[in-house]
Amino acid sequence: MTDGHHVLPVIRAGIDTYRQPVVYMREDCHLCRAEGFSVLTQVRISLGERSIIAALNVVTGADWLPPETAALSDAAWNLLGASAGEIAMFSHPEPPASASAIRTKVYGGRIDDEACRMIVGDIVARRLSDLDLAAFITACAGDRLDLAETIALTRAMQGAGKTIDWGQGLVLDKHCVGGLPGNRTTPIVVAIVAAAGYRIPKTSSRAITSPAGTADTMEVLAPVALDIAAMRRVVESEGGCIVWGGGLDLSPADDLLIRVERPLDFDSDGQLVASILSKKAAAGSTHVLIDMPVGPTAKVRNSEAAKALTERLLAVSQAVDIGLRVAVSDGSAPVGRGIGPALEAQDVLAVLRRDFDAPFDLRERALDLAGAVLNLAQANHGHGRDIAREILESGAAEAKFLAICEAQGGFREPKIAPHHASEVAAVGGRITAIDNRRIAKIAKLAGAPGRKGAGVLLFTKPGDRIEAGQPLYEIYAETRGELSWAQDYARSGASPFQIGDTP
Amino acid sequence: MTDGHHVLPVIRAGIDTYRQPVVYMREDCHLCRAEGFSVLTQVRISLGERSIIAALNVVTGADWLPPETAALSDAAWNLLGASAGEIAMFSHPEPPASASAIRTKVYGGRIDDEACRMIVGDIVARRLSDLDLAAFITACAGDRLDLAETIALTRAMQGAGKTIDWGQGLVLDKHCVGGLPGNRTTPIVVAIVAAAGYRIPKTSSRAITSPAGTADTMEVLAPVALDIAAMRRVVESEGGCIVWGGGLDLSPADDLLIRVERPLDFDSDGQLVASILSKKAAAGSTHVLIDMPVGPTAKVRNSEAAKALTERLLAVSQAVDIGLRVAVSDGSAPVGRGIGPALEAQDVLAVLRRDFDAPFDLRERALDLAGAVLNLAQANHGHGRDIAREILESGAAEAKFLAICEAQGGFREPKIAPHHASEVAAVGGRITAIDNRRIAKIAKLAGAPGRKGAGVLLFTKPGDRIEAGQPLYEIYAETRGELSWAQDYARSGASPFQIGDTP
Repeated sequence: MTDGHHVLPVIRAGIDTYRQPVVYMREDCHLCRAEGFSVLTQVRISLGERSIIAALNVVTGADWLPPETAALSDAAWNLLGASAGEIAMFSHPEPPASASAIRTKVYGGRIDDEACRMIVGDIVARRLSDLDLAAFITACAGDRLDLAETIALTRAMQGAGKTIDWGQGLVLDKHCVGGLPGNRTTPIVVAIVAAAGYRIPKTSSRAITSPAGTADTMEVLAPVALDIAAMRRVVESEGGCIVWGGGLDLSPADDLLIRVERPLDFDSDGQLVASILSKKAAAGSTHVLIDMPVGPTAKVRNSEAAKALTERLLAVSQAVDIGLRVAVSDGSAPVGRGIGPALEAQDVLAVLRRDFDAPFDLRERALDLAGAVLNLAQANHGHGRDIAREILESGAAEAKFLAICEAQGGFREPKIAPHHASEVAAVGGRITAIDNRRIAKIAKLAGAPGRKGAGVLLFTKPGDRIEAGQPLYEIYAETRGELSWAQDYARSGASPFQIGDTP
Repeated sequence: MTDGHHVLPVIRAGIDTYRQPVVYMREDCHLCRAEGFSVLTQVRISLGERSIIAALNVVTGADWLPPETAALSDAAWNLLGASAGEIAMFSHPEPPASASAIRTKVYGGRIDDEACRMIVGDIVARRLSDLDLAAFITACAGDRLDLAETIALTRAMQGAGKTIDWGQGLVLDKHCVGGLPGNRTTPIVVAIVAAAGYRIPKTSSRAITSPAGTADTMEVLAPVALDIAAMRRVVESEGGCIVWGGGLDLSPADDLLIRVERPLDFDSDGQLVASILSKKAAAGSTHVLIDMPVGPTAKVRNSEAAKALTERLLAVSQAVDIGLRVAVSDGSAPVGRGIGPALEAQDVLAVLRRDFDAPFDLRERALDLAGAVLNLAQANHGHGRDIAREILESGAAEAKFLAICEAQGGFREPKIAPHHASEVAAVGGRITAIDNRRIAKIAKLAGAPGRKGAGVLLFTKPGDRIEAGQPLYEIYAETRGELSWAQDYARSGASPFQIGDTP
């Protein structure tokens, strides 16, 4: 094309559309009119070698966009690597190569290795719109991905990003299926396993809908945004690390799918397994322990669901050559006392430091998991838990954890938010359960994870007897406004604490 | 809530997000921080009695949005009926009531009357995000809606908008399943049926992805944006009308679903039937003829697909008490000569005026359909086609059409675009087929339907023998730029004309 009527200079719109590329064009722009773009939802934009599909927003009455100019959202700007005033080419998007593969799955057919590679390739290249991603996720929901498809999707996702090669020898790892606030065992497990002399290069995620991800909590204690080279140096000197995986480009399709998966919130064993194992395979793990809390308000709701998910994890891990074990645990209530980055970090430190009042449940879970991880190495002959306890009690785990923090850029003490208020029991009785979802929401409304020091501190746990008027938990917030907002929600519906009147 | 920290004044962003409500907030806005909105994709906004779910876009580096202010997209602004500076309330969206019904369908379950009412209610109230809509559409794709579900969805969609009551007696109607460029029989059929003394209050759509909808073509000849009262006056005086249905709020869920269905482009017999029949039932039609063109590049690809769709249309029409017949027709090539609003209007007028060179295929199809519509009325004893031909040949149809145009606001002659160029055959031979989708795209790139006078004029049809170098079709455009853009595409791939070398 040489007549130039399908090009426009681009500027930055300064609008963050949460990773979705968007282009803003004026309705009187000649290109918008000439190409009939105004009736489209998607437009292809090319700049040099790069090309993306962006959603089109027509600007009707704003004067911030000059005539005959296209503005790009942050995501579109960064993906294209644009500079202000550069001339981009705009065209009608052709259906992506994977459209027919997605269509096959939508109509109930099966997708093979090649189909999965095409779909994942188009996801990573941003050639699929959010609607396309929603359709693909919906078509894979429930049990609609069979085992062979799950394996194909896992391999395709692993192959679409970077892979870390740790050379010969064991590379141990753990992963929690999730849904349990405060279940921050990872820093303790990594410290113990590394202190035992094994490699455990742990990559973790930030919270998307929870009050804290492991990366958020760890960031309270040490820097976590390391690149692969820096991560490698930490592991070479200390055996273990706890870094944020989001910047490492391991299974990038997973990060892009999660953006659409979270608001839809469909369960899909196939996609969950592909998500976990594509990341583990890309991170170079040889053996992985899966922590699977099961409970009515956890991610895995009951034992049948746990069994089906376990079977699929085992089968797919074999296919991608990872030794895998699943540890099913009680998911009926939060773990530890703190919920929120700094409050959880406090619990982690208390366990590592063998404080008298360290949360017992967090300590026991961490020892169970560390023991199970050590047992992945045959040399430990099933004595993993004893070894783990020895390492924790001797102070070797604490020393190793501090060394890892220093290697990642320096240890720091957690700081708890200044404003706080307690919520009390309306009636007396025995606590029978705590709603993980409601208590997590209170911590989020108080500011977690964005406000590192905000969250919830639990005073009681299921099994405890309490009196009416006795404090159940404390809300921490950086500002009075945030504190009252969380309090309003906490008092608006059913209490997250279920209290029975049995003796 | 009285502390006021979840409210913000709103302004109009002047951004048209194609019916999706979007809210723009600065990343340093206290509300964005306090509520953790920045990690959300959806926010609930309430203003007075109205409440919508909007997608959140965080504004990072633009100075057009003042501090502590939220800007609304055109769709959000209009849905809330906002005025500049009004104080809106913002909150985390609770899952909509229909979330579990959609989830049931996604996981392979069935949706009943109540579930369909909840889903459609949430669609119309804008409580579902585009991702939710994409999930619902995907879950209904192919044959995933059974007959009972299709009936439930049709009734729910019909019940969610306005209904027109025409009183006692027959109300005839026709609908084309679509996919055939230039197949503009409706104005001719309406004129004939109204001239025969029947009521045929036709509502039509504008093009979304095609080069012209019936409303676009009719608008070249007369105003079409009438409200229900004006439509009623036209029908009371002339028996028939051809108006744009988009402004009448008949089955509004359909309009909202179509916005997401079109880019996804999944076939779903259930949704197609619910879309057609909910509109017809809401429009008060008692008898409907369905024109179903079948061909490899039409909407319905083959006779098995036609059979399945016909069976479902018949069963659902019975359930909603509409007398329905399906007329299957040849969908292997465009109809008439013109493609694009004014070029099609020219064809329609030529047939009505009995011009010597009026397109024969359009005339025959219109007579077939008008005859079949007349046969829906038992009084015609199956002689509909003879009656229709008589009415057309006598000039009564032309007179009735002009009277309808005058009643709708005044007849006007079509104006064809000034720039044009012909495309010639690369080889000689007999034309065997014309690709409906490619020829439609050329018309769209030339400017149709936005530019009423733009489009394609066909010189030849399947069955014709042509020589190399002979003109096959002419492209019409309002500007040289648009003309060359369509020409570039026309010459870039396979020709839309398939030419065989048999004698």
